[in-house]
Amino acid sequence: MPLTDSNIAAGIGDDAAVMKPPTRSICLVTTDILIEDIHFTLDYTDPIRLGKKALSINLSDIAAMGGTPQYFLLSMGLPLHLPFRWVEELFQGIQQVAERYNLSLIGGDTSLARKVTINITLIGRGKAGEITYRKGAQPGDQIMVTGTLGNAALGLRILESHKGDSSISRTEDNDLTELIEKHLSPIPRIAEGRLIAKNHLASAMIDISDGLMADLGHILEESHAGAKIWVSQLPLSEAYRRKVLHYTSSEIDLAISGGEDYELLLTTPRKKGEKLLGLFKKSGLKITPIGEIADSRYGLRLFLDDGREYRPMVKGYDHFKNRGK
Amino acid sequence: MPLTDSNIAAGIGDDAAVMKPPTRSICLVTTDILIEDIHFTLDYTDPIRLGKKALSINLSDIAAMGGTPQYFLLSMGLPLHLPFRWVEELFQGIQQVAERYNLSLIGGDTSLARKVTINITLIGRGKAGEITYRKGAQPGDQIMVTGTLGNAALGLRILESHKGDSSISRTEDNDLTELIEKHLSPIPRIAEGRLIAKNHLASAMIDISDGLMADLGHILEESHAGAKIWVSQLPLSEAYRRKVLHYTSSEIDLAISGGEDYELLLTTPRKKGEKLLGLFKKSGLKITPIGEIADSRYGLRLFLDDGREYRPMVKGYDHFKNRGK
Repeated sequence: MPLTDSNIAAGIGDDAAVMKPPTRSICLVTTDILIEDIHFTLDYTDPIRLGKKALSINLSDIAAMGGTPQYFLLSMGLPLHLPFRWVEELFQGIQQVAERYNLSLIGGDTSLARKVTINITLIGRGKAGEITYRKGAQPGDQIMVTGTLGNAALGLRILESHKGDSSISRTEDNDLTELIEKHLSPIPRIAEGRLIAKNHLASAMIDISDGLMADLGHILEESHAGAKIWVSQLPLSEAYRRKVLHYTSSEIDLAISGGEDYELLLTTPRKKGEKLLGLFKKSGLKITPIGEIADSRYGLRLFLDDGREYRPMVKGYDHFKNRGK
Repeated sequence: MPLTDSNIAAGIGDDAAVMKPPTRSICLVTTDILIEDIHFTLDYTDPIRLGKKALSINLSDIAAMGGTPQYFLLSMGLPLHLPFRWVEELFQGIQQVAERYNLSLIGGDTSLARKVTINITLIGRGKAGEITYRKGAQPGDQIMVTGTLGNAALGLRILESHKGDSSISRTEDNDLTELIEKHLSPIPRIAEGRLIAKNHLASAMIDISDGLMADLGHILEESHAGAKIWVSQLPLSEAYRRKVLHYTSSEIDLAISGGEDYELLLTTPRKKGEKLLGLFKKSGLKITPIGEIADSRYGLRLFLDDGREYRPMVKGYDHFKNRGK
């Protein structure tokens, strides 16, 4: 990650990074901490994918604001027993994502630690008129989501159910590989976020880290609104549909509350919905309408095709986690 | 820490903080991670002081660049067994320092963890022509340091030698209190850094976190220079002088290599030295000339009053720590 960026006067190697702020843009800043045995386990997380994921989940936050990521700072706590090769591969993973999105590493801190700890702070830019917030959803707006839901949660469930059996990482079942990969290597939806933001298509947007219900809940809270979701419209992958009932008793609960999808969830005024769908189709990007914003008194309700209300067994994923996001 | 800052469009409560960049200034960004049992132990660290210190050591990095701190992001990993009161007091400590320096908390992340982990990213501003780097020291420049040296290292030594004896925190020996306090509650030299930067008085500057020798070494490396230090000129507190030989066999080694002083170490062209000393005197701030920059081939050498070279037993404090600073 060489510092070729002319807006950085000093990066690694001084007391602080010196950054020329963007002209006619605003700064976006986000931070996320990943801790071994809380967010991941070394049993089934290889260092390359861990590095990629650590940076990608921060990128997902910038994507959700409609911004362009630029710089990051990396703090790490590393146990003494880790092989040097492991740390090198962690960096390789981080570097792969940094190169993919043209990011510069501008600072950091490294320390010994009992458990692997990775904290990344990511700085991006955006135009004031393009930034998308959690607030702004209006009754009647369509609710849409990128990609598919539930793969990451099902992938984690699969890894956990094969704990101690490392052969799962070499499985030849393509469905299992796809689901596990979505958990280990989420793809931040930067292109999708930019497409939405630069065309002013979203009234509100968030990335799904805590699960559809929990994160839609954040939009509803900030927008003082309610919502109805059509369960049959939820974008579920073929792999998810084929495997989900082997690992849990409900076909949809993991998709609506499992967490770590890192897809974008947004609301769009009805008259912009068609344009949005057209632009995504043209760009080869996946997005699906799944419901509609309602009045705040309506609450958050899910419906089946026959008109019956669906009541999930579980609520959003929220292990004493106040993401400050 | 209410968000009254009109330059922040969204802070806590969205996917990323939205920050209007300063006009006609540049951004300074720094990050530091503190991990229980590596950087501190809960045995003798109360949560209020820990919160203050976590923010202060980041402030010290901004001070060393001559900048003005503005915003911070706070990531925490907290064990489940911590009493709620403890976490509240940690916040109180952070808040006290944030209020003192007029800082806004703009984002963060909280997670469970096995060990208390605190990562702060601090963002500040500075004028391009005022920022002080580690590079820039020239042969003949005076070397100066704010405050006193060695108190923090001696304070830590005292705490460690009384391990398990919690009465040390209630000692009525004012010397011990002063030394321990410097370790637990370092004061970032923001006013000193600004005074130096806005008057363009430093050719190079750094904060002393790893010890005088190690951090002067960073200036010398970045500036391609050498240095001579006059041991008798090192600013040692009365408390330090009275206690140091009770805890270690050398009167000066802790002061030159102990670490965590969080004082500013700077070099100043000889013709500006007098002005600098005058301004500090007028402002009631402490600064002391301790040596002179030499040619790079000279290396880093310390001298006693009788002209003999002093060879310390220890080198800088550097426990597998690459501060990225």
